[in-house]
This record gives sequence, structure tokens and C-alpha cells, in this order.
Amino acid sequence: MSESPPRSKLQEDWKTLCAKKKAAQMASIPSAWRIEQPPESQLDVLSAVETCGLLSPQELELIETGSRDVSVLAEMLATGKCTSVEVTTAYSKSAMIAQQTTNCLTEIFVDRALQRAKEVDDYFEQHRKPIGALHGLPISLKDQFTMKGLETIMGYACNIGELADEDCVLVEMLYELGAVPFVRTNVPQTLMWGETHNNVFGRTTNPYNRKLTPGGSSGGEGALLAMKGSPLGVGTDIDGSLRIPSAFCGLYTLRPSYERLPYHGASNALSGQESISSVLGPMSTSVSALKLFTKALVDARPWERDPLVIPKPWVDAQYQLAEHGSGKNMCFAIMWDNKVVRPHPPLKRAMKMVKAALEKAGHRVIDWEPLNHLDIYRTAQTILVADGGEDYRRACEASGEPLITSMSPDDDPHPLDLEIPLVKTLVGSPRSRSAYELWQLHKEKRTLRKAYLDHWNATENLTNTGRPVDAIISPAVAYTAVPHGLNYDSFYTTLGNAMDYACSVFPVTFVDPAIDIPSPPHEFHNHEDEAFYKLYHPDLFPGLPVGLQLIGRTLEEEAVIGMTELVDTALKEYKKDNQLR
Amino acid sequence: MSESPPRSKLQEDWKTLCAKKKAAQMASIPSAWRIEQPPESQLDVLSAVETCGLLSPQELELIETGSRDVSVLAEMLATGKCTSVEVTTAYSKSAMIAQQTTNCLTEIFVDRALQRAKEVDDYFEQHRKPIGALHGLPISLKDQFTMKGLETIMGYACNIGELADEDCVLVEMLYELGAVPFVRTNVPQTLMWGETHNNVFGRTTNPYNRKLTPGGSSGGEGALLAMKGSPLGVGTDIDGSLRIPSAFCGLYTLRPSYERLPYHGASNALSGQESISSVLGPMSTSVSALKLFTKALVDARPWERDPLVIPKPWVDAQYQLAEHGSGKNMCFAIMWDNKVVRPHPPLKRAMKMVKAALEKAGHRVIDWEPLNHLDIYRTAQTILVADGGEDYRRACEASGEPLITSMSPDDDPHPLDLEIPLVKTLVGSPRSRSAYELWQLHKEKRTLRKAYLDHWNATENLTNTGRPVDAIISPAVAYTAVPHGLNYDSFYTTLGNAMDYACSVFPVTFVDPAIDIPSPPHEFHNHEDEAFYKLYHPDLFPGLPVGLQLIGRTLEEEAVIGMTELVDTALKEYKKDNQLR
Repeated sequence: MSESPPRSKLQEDWKTLCAKKKAAQMASIPSAWRIEQPPESQLDVLSAVETCGLLSPQELELIETGSRDVSVLAEMLATGKCTSVEVTTAYSKSAMIAQQTTNCLTEIFVDRALQRAKEVDDYFEQHRKPIGALHGLPISLKDQFTMKGLETIMGYACNIGELADEDCVLVEMLYELGAVPFVRTNVPQTLMWGETHNNVFGRTTNPYNRKLTPGGSSGGEGALLAMKGSPLGVGTDIDGSLRIPSAFCGLYTLRPSYERLPYHGASNALSGQESISSVLGPMSTSVSALKLFTKALVDARPWERDPLVIPKPWVDAQYQLAEHGSGKNMCFAIMWDNKVVRPHPPLKRAMKMVKAALEKAGHRVIDWEPLNHLDIYRTAQTILVADGGEDYRRACEASGEPLITSMSPDDDPHPLDLEIPLVKTLVGSPRSRSAYELWQLHKEKRTLRKAYLDHWNATENLTNTGRPVDAIISPAVAYTAVPHGLNYDSFYTTLGNAMDYACSVFPVTFVDPAIDIPSPPHEFHNHEDEAFYKLYHPDLFPGLPVGLQLIGRTLEEEAVIGMTELVDTALKEYKKDNQLR
Repeated sequence: MSESPPRSKLQEDWKTLCAKKKAAQMASIPSAWRIEQPPESQLDVLSAVETCGLLSPQELELIETGSRDVSVLAEMLATGKCTSVEVTTAYSKSAMIAQQTTNCLTEIFVDRALQRAKEVDDYFEQHRKPIGALHGLPISLKDQFTMKGLETIMGYACNIGELADEDCVLVEMLYELGAVPFVRTNVPQTLMWGETHNNVFGRTTNPYNRKLTPGGSSGGEGALLAMKGSPLGVGTDIDGSLRIPSAFCGLYTLRPSYERLPYHGASNALSGQESISSVLGPMSTSVSALKLFTKALVDARPWERDPLVIPKPWVDAQYQLAEHGSGKNMCFAIMWDNKVVRPHPPLKRAMKMVKAALEKAGHRVIDWEPLNHLDIYRTAQTILVADGGEDYRRACEASGEPLITSMSPDDDPHPLDLEIPLVKTLVGSPRSRSAYELWQLHKEKRTLRKAYLDHWNATENLTNTGRPVDAIISPAVAYTAVPHGLNYDSFYTTLGNAMDYACSVFPVTFVDPAIDIPSPPHEFHNHEDEAFYKLYHPDLFPGLPVGLQLIGRTLEEEAVIGMTELVDTALKEYKKDNQLR
């Protein structure tokens, strides 16, 4: 964000600037790839890529392959079984369809991406070997990952017209690994919402049901990937921003610990805030993306580019779960309720499925005793607004655009009459803190981290494995995707950010109103818990993906990826055996 | 620090409280171990342990062994060649002598230490094996490392009478490793001075010359170790606090990167400040202490006790310099002048000696081009006072003691007429910053870290090794120990803290007025540089130890230890060959 916008910008009203930017974005969709918009009343647009007729059968097959297992597609590219131009073309088309149905993109640069794909193909042609571990693979990027010559709007009108001088370290490394960055994806203004809407590009919708949010802040990625508009996307997470959209859109993601992957040079909200660091991670419809992306980057020694990245190489033994009984007879724990908000019935059913699947696969599953979750939430949220909104205020003032204070659509309320008394009662009003006050919050956080560490270690007495619980299975969000304006849940994700636990999200099942019937009221933990309880209407959520979170220890990315694959395999087998979806 | 002191304390004046505490400390020295004080005019007290007659020849031999090579002493203890009671008794005696000549201690608990030593010996007697890697070894601790049942004064009167409920994680682990914590050592009020003086215990002096400071804030350790009053001490470093006293007292130390060793539960100044984290590290007269201590702790998996510690095991290949050409034909760079303050002649001579020694040993030595050192210093110093002194103020207010604003002795100025216009002109007045302002400082720091990383990587073109410079050799302080009140130098140490580089300090030689003659004036970099230049009087510094710093990369502790041993060996051979001291 520029603190003093160039004179030329001040001459134009922010609305005019945004309208021009949006028009330019529309114009950047190749005209041959414009599709007939599905009617507004069509809520589920997942099939648009297949049905709109824009993609050839070969292109559809590439996309199917990439969405089923991105490592297979990567292997095809690395061995010359398909070209990057073919794959990039196919995904560019599907991304344009995703954009036209869910409004998930920001920067669109088809020519640049195809030019890059051509260079990658030429390299292969000449050398008969791939450039790197991500050879030819189109990769979508959240609208924070600066690319030379492009704007990085990141949800703020003030960034219109500001072209980046250089690639951020992530993009620099992706290029060196052979990847093809091909679209950038939408975010909410401020980045600090679990939904995706801003004054420049507008609102991104959930392709499972466009009246619902795809989550946020990496919600553009969520919608794009669910539409099969990208085989692998990169988002960020400071409070759940990778995990919320992944859970809402049926995706896999990895939230690595602080400073494992290179963030340097990317734009960010609350830039310079280092108490709870934002991290970047992969999102995808296939579990193999987690290892493919993370290993490729770590193997390329990101600590030589980003001074904040820890020099920890990829340890394959950890991925093989050497420290977790080599993946045999492990002990997982399920967090049925974190005592702040109780999950909706589909989440509960999903946890039961995972429990059954893991037990079937020979593992032990015990209950997780939650500890201090409300205190952890309060401390973390207080830290994240310790500037009293100064960062947002300056970014808005730079263009004159208003700060968005609600994600509810003004003109398009949800048809259901939802009386949801959602008030942020759990954390006091944000106010500017002094550095001294921030230090006191750090002490609170440190005490809470120590208590959670000791608590986790103490489970050694419960597991029968000689180790503490290997991983916690928990909701990522207490509900599935909700109507726009209603997602206030980071109650299950903040833990990972505040404690710096490596976490993943994986899809489990879909809401089935026939079996996911409302529970009788329980003794509510608090006001939010009651509001969440009242939000559950079986009619609202049919067919929506239900994802869960796997929580591992700090800097245990390899093991978390290995365990996520293990759980995913167990779940697929369990579902197959029991003919479940 | 307690924010509201107990009523009983408020009834007593801080001076009375301090006097009582000091009297209690005096009384805790066993009467048989009181020695005749050397006359005040005797400046060099290094030989007091040998000459005072308190130690038996066997005890003196144990102490000589431990001071020459602590790993030999540790091996003797681990194999039953001597008992912990013998060693702890010998070092307790020498520590009491160090206390009586340099005032270096805070808590004295001989009975507890000998009781512990007895338990350790009993364990060995019974099991015929050591408890752990530090079996029976007496270890001195800076007055931050909380021990159950003892006060942690840490330079503040308000902490008098506050007994700790539990051991900090370091102490807990040291006990499990078999060590014998046996004394705690003095620090300055606020911990943020490069000298050692407070209202409770008073001033610690340098045993090489008691008119001079041992440095700080780990200055109690510095004086104690130089007196052979401990075989291994633990200090901390937020801005040079391990390295300054090590350089001033002829010691070895390691300043590890943030979050490698367990700080949890230790008292600290600026507690909760996490922008530039204080770290703990070993100090010793023998280089082997660095590996002995660091490996013992890391092997004991401190990340299972302290949530902030990175789960990075000890990597022996890194210690063997696998990433530095296996220690053959390396390329070092010497920072002759950081362009902020120019080092005094003895430091320059020490660097020349190291250069010659390394070249003799087959390595290449090039000049280091300094980058942004003043900006780094300013940014770091601004961060460290971002609370505008609130932390200090509260700690002083809690007892009513005054904040110490100068380390100069009121009643005992140095006989030399030193007109030293030392003014902190390089950093503006400290003021309280908001969290938002602190975040902007983090951005500055991050930009500076990235620039230094790129700068270091770019040396790959100069080294002829195919790698960037393996390590930088630099002063730790621009001068040797100076008279009390005159040390204002963290200009060469802040780099390590702000960039989070693993660094060591090692002794090189001693000041020799015959050859360390003053240089002609140079074009001064700034006011401080001029003041430092004027401070050099050959008469002031004869015989003082001259230490240098070795600067490695972030989290490269193993390699920094390996390189320090390599430099130390090369230097010893060079000195032997050339009959130098």
C-alpha cells in the first residue's frame, strides 16, 4: 500500500478507479472464452466447466487428471506426456469459466502465462528434462503474491495502478522450479475476513451454492479450485485463511508453521505484524498437492532467499512418519467440541467417519480434551487488532474508499429468515495498543503455548503408543459454508496460528439433510455458540462439502502431510467399504 | 517483576531492603572461605585463587583442568575419575574468592549445590554411569535463570523476597543432564547495559583490572569465569550481553539464533518483547564448552519443554562443517571496520593475527564489505526501547529505587583524565511506540535482513570456494575492557541480534602497549567514532584480553561451533610457531 497515493489517483474517485479496473479485468478475458452466464437463480455452478462447451474432451481430461491427482499431472508434464501449453490452456479456460460464474479472480494474464508455458515446453524440447519439480504446472496465486509488472490489488482500491517492480520470492522460486503462475485470486478488503469481498473486484461466491461464501481470505482460490479452475493454488493463513475456504470448498490445504515457506516480498495486510505471522500454503482438490508443493519449495532452500525462513530441509523420514510409529498403530484424538462453539451435525458425523476409518485402519482414536481455547482465541484476536485498525484505515484513506464493515450483501439477503444475533462479544472492541501492551500480550500467548505443549505431552499416558497423541482431528470451522455475511468462525483455526501448529484440512463428506438432522439444544458455551446452533437449518446446507482439520506439532510439516495422506487413504477405503460418499 | 509489591516490602525503604539482601549474601559465604581482601589499589586480582591459600593443590589442579578444557573435566566426572563433590567444592571456593575480589555473584547456595553434588555422586556410585552429558559439572547461571526456592533479583530491588515457585526450563534440563548449578551471577539494573552494576548487589569489576568493567549484561559471568570461579556459565544476549563480557574477560561464548535453546521460565527484562529475542548461551575459558553445552541441551529435545524452541536436532555433519568444505580451504572475511566505529589498535592487530593464522592453515581470507550497519543499529535500538522505558519504570516503581542512568562510579572516577564526549547521538530519544509503529520497524528490519542475506550470498563470486564467505571475523567490541561507565559499544554485536546470526566470541591475544600504538586520526564516521578514537590510551589497556567475533548464518550453531574450534586451533598453532601470546 502506498502511504501517499500519486497525484493522478487522487484526481479520480475511488469508485471510478474500481469500475475502470473491473472493466479492464473483464476485457482481459479472451473474447473466445466468454461463456453464457448461468442464470442467477442457478446456485450450483460446479458443472459449468464441463457443460459450457469451451473445453475440448482432451482438455477436460487433463483437468480431470489434474484435479484427481496433481502429482500425476506434474509427472506427465515432467516426462513430456503433455505440454505446458496444453495444460495451461485447459486450465486458463476453466479458470475463465470459474471467474464468470463465481468471480474468483483478480489479475488475468493469459498471454503472459501461455508465453511462459511455451518457454517451459521449449526448454523440455531442447534439454529433454524438466526445469524443476513443478515443470510446466499452472499455479494460481492469491492476490498477495507480487509479480513484476502486475498490480497487487489485495482488496484495496489504493493499489490500483501500482505495478510491482519485482516478483516476490515465492514467484521467483516457482519460476525456477518450472511452474507457470497463470491467474491471481480474490481476497476480502483488509484480508481479515473469513469471506471474500472487496470494493475493487466485488464478491466471490461458492460454486457449490452461489448464495453462500467460499470462505476467506483465500476465498478466490477456494472457488477457483472447487471449479477445477487450477490444479494447485497458493493461499495464506493468519487466522484460518487457508483452512476456512478449504473446508468450505472441499479442498486440501496445509498451514505450515511460521517461517517454513518464503513470504518475503509478498504484499500483506498488517504488514510487519510478527506476533502471529501469516504463512503461505498450497490448496488443491488432491492431497498430493501438499507434498508436491511443500517439498519442491523446501528442496529449493528458501532460506537462501528469505531471511525469515528456517533452514530446515525436507526430511523424508518425517514424512514417512518415523516419529509416529512409522504410521502403524498410531493414536489420534478427536476434538468433538472446543468448548467455545459446538460444531454443526455434519461436522460431528464427519468426525465419526474419520474415527471409524482410522480404527478400521488399525489406529487408536481417543477424545481430545480442549484447553483454554477461548483464552487463546481472545489473546490472538487482541494481538491481530493491536494497531486499532490503523493499517486498514491508512489503506482506505489512500484512495478514499470506505472500510467494509459487513460481508452481508445489501441488495441480496439470503431468502431464509435467519435471526442470528452474531455479535463479537467474545473479544473487546479493538483499540490501538502500545508496544509495551503488545509485549504483555506476547507473555500471555507464551504462557498459553507452554500450557498447550504440556497438555499435549501429558497425553502420553493415554495413548498406549509410548508417545503423546500423534495428531488432533478437529473441525476447521464449526459449520459448512454459510450464506454471505454470516461467517464469523475462526474459533477452530486460531489455535493453529497462535500455537504455530502445522495443520492441514482435508475433505471428508457432504451434507446430507436426511441424516444430518439438528441436535437438541445443549447448554450453550456462550452467545456465539447459541447463534451458531441456531444457524443450522438442514435446508441451507445440502450437498455442501464437509472438511476437517488435522493438527500436528510446530514445524512438523512433513509428518502432517504424511498423516493427512494416511487419514485420507483410510477414509477413502472406509467410504468404499461402506458405500458412503 | 511483581507489578504490585507485597505490603511488607512497601513498609521498607528500598535502600534498607538492598542493604539487608547484600548482608544476607555476605553471610551466605561460608566463614572458612572468607579471604583477606587484596588492597583496593591491587587492580589485577586474577591470581587470587591460586595465592590466597584456600584451595588445596588437588583442588587447584581440578580448576586448572576445568579452565583449560571443560570437556576433559566433564569426562573425568562422567567416568568417576573425580567426584562432583570434589569439583563442586573446588569451584565453590574459587567462586567465593571471585566474589570477594570482583563482586560477581548474586545468589550463593553452597549447601544446596554440595547436596546436589552428593546426589549426583550417589547416582554414579549406584549405577556406575553418568546421569547425563553434564554429569556432576558445576555450572554458574546469570541472575535470570530462576531456581525454585531462590530469589531472582535480576538487578531490581523489587525482586527481593520473591521466591521462585519452580525452576525455569533451562535449570530443569540442566538437572536432568546431571549438572550442578552452584552460583548465580550479577547483572546490571534493566539488563540493558554493557556493564554490570545495580542497586542491590552493586558493581562487578574486571579481574584483569578492577578499575575496568567486565562488560555486561552477563558481566558477573565474565568476571567469575575469568577468575576460574566456574568451568561453564550461562548468560544471555539481546544486544551483545554474552559477547561483550566474553571479549572483555578473555572468554569463549556462543550467541545462538533465536529459539534454539530453552529460555522459557527465565526472568527477563523487556519480557514479552519478541522483535529481537534475547537468547541464552554458554560462556567459558575453554572452547570445548560451546559444543558440550549446546549439544547436551539440544540432544535433550528442548522443544518438548519450551514451545518457542525450534525442533532442530544437533546435526553432527554440520558441526563437521559438511556445508563449509568439510573445513578445508575455506574462505573467511574480515570486517576491519564496520563504518560506524573503527576498532582500537589491539583489535586490528588481533584480526591480522587471525588472518595470518587462517592463511597459514590453508584458508583464504578476504575483506568484508560492511553494509547498512548504522541503519541496522538504529532500527534495532529503536525496537529495543519501543516501550519508552515502561518496563524499567515499572520495575523501579515497584520498590521505589531510582533508575540508574549512568554506569560511572560517583565516588571513584578513573584516574586518567578522559574527556570523552559520549552522547547517544546515533539513535533518537527513546519514546513509547504504538503497535502499529512497531510493525513498521519490523518491516525496516526485514528489509535490512534481506539486503544483508543477498549481500552475503553475493560473496560467492569472491571466494573461489563455490560458496559464499563461510564466516565473518569481526570485533565483538571496538575496544578491550574500558573504565566503568564508558562502555557504549554494541555497534559490532547488534548485527547478530538484529539479523539473528549465530555468532561466537573467542580470545585472541592481550594488549601490548609496545606494539598497539595509537593510530593517526582517520576521517571519523561520526561523533561516537571520534569519541572511541580518543578513548585509546595505551596506558589504559595493558595486558587486557582481546577477543574477536565469528559471525555465521542463522541457526547455524553447529557450524559456528565447528568454525570457532577451527579458528582457535589455527590461532594456537600460529602463536606457537611465532612465539606470540
